[in-house]
Amino acid sequence: MFSEEERDAMYKVIYSRRDIRTFLPDPVPENKIHRILDAAHHAPSVGFMQPWNFVLVSSGEIKEKLAWAADKERRALAIHYEEEKASKFLGLKVEGLKEAPLTICVTCDPTRGGSHVLGRNSIPETDMMSTACAIQNMWLAACSEGLAMGWVSFYKKNDIRDILDIPPHVDPLALISIGYTDHYPEKPILETAEWEKRRSLDHLIFENRWDHR
Amino acid sequence: MFSEEERDAMYKVIYSRRDIRTFLPDPVPENKIHRILDAAHHAPSVGFMQPWNFVLVSSGEIKEKLAWAADKERRALAIHYEEEKASKFLGLKVEGLKEAPLTICVTCDPTRGGSHVLGRNSIPETDMMSTACAIQNMWLAACSEGLAMGWVSFYKKNDIRDILDIPPHVDPLALISIGYTDHYPEKPILETAEWEKRRSLDHLIFENRWDHR
Repeated sequence: MFSEEERDAMYKVIYSRRDIRTFLPDPVPENKIHRILDAAHHAPSVGFMQPWNFVLVSSGEIKEKLAWAADKERRALAIHYEEEKASKFLGLKVEGLKEAPLTICVTCDPTRGGSHVLGRNSIPETDMMSTACAIQNMWLAACSEGLAMGWVSFYKKNDIRDILDIPPHVDPLALISIGYTDHYPEKPILETAEWEKRRSLDHLIFENRWDHR
Repeated sequence: MFSEEERDAMYKVIYSRRDIRTFLPDPVPENKIHRILDAAHHAPSVGFMQPWNFVLVSSGEIKEKLAWAADKERRALAIHYEEEKASKFLGLKVEGLKEAPLTICVTCDPTRGGSHVLGRNSIPETDMMSTACAIQNMWLAACSEGLAMGWVSFYKKNDIRDILDIPPHVDPLALISIGYTDHYPEKPILETAEWEKRRSLDHLIFENRWDHR
């Protein structure tokens, strides 16, 4: 059981957590990284398959390559967006990949646990969702450790496989930047920039069946 | 910034959280449900798209139908597993759906935010991963509230769409049972039952590139 203080601490972390794009060069202590990854590893997973791996990239050379892959995709996306604003936001993320002292590629191995993972047969995407739960644990742990974290999800997966030598059947689902920051915003950057509003929770909740209004 | 106590509370919740399958009939106070859903709504989402909805099912009749859909799938899966053990674990989940006073269907709307959600174009699954982050927030919040939560992921999505009148383009990603329990185990049930071991974290971490050993 948890005390009210513990419960409130939990909510405080959930509400404070932000996607960060600017990092200081200061290194992250190894024990913090270990605690964050152990938190990830204690996420739920379908059939207890634990499909995740973590490739810790501290090499400047490899980080440059990852940033190159994301920047290539940013430029390709910019052609579709046809507006400077979108490209600006995505550009911030690419810079973050170079600035942060550590990049973690989080992968999902759909073959982990064999051909018939308990409960995964009906909805195969549950392996990816398990990995996302691990990333959310990482994020909350990082936040509670006073660290900043950013999630980059624009790249061609095969570019990342090539750069990090990841097997073809393994999914590189996220590039995570971790480090310290001198700017931890109160609200999501996309909310502050009026790119998108936070929706009203009441409108997202239905009782007993979908409301088509 | 967080105190050490707050950080430790965060980790305590992460390590305590379990997938629960047996529930007491006691109702869950509305303010707790609201706090849990608000925590879910404060999960990260790609391009701030907030793709989630929550269908709160308290009607006994509709809960029976959901349990029927899961049980139908359990019986179909049992034919593939050809062993009683797997069917037993999945059976527990079906019972949980009937026992828990509240079932929440968490959905993902891939069309939320329009055709070009910022950052989602490269990896479309990021909408599902955002929804999984919301579910993980729910889970941690529920745990810190002294509540039990179970995630059922075996059913045909169209059965759930039919029962809850969910539009065809919306993905019913999870059936979540929430309630109180008198048995909150220390370890995952599948670990205790020696169905699957917890992997060693060290073997899941690589430095700078994938290690093919």
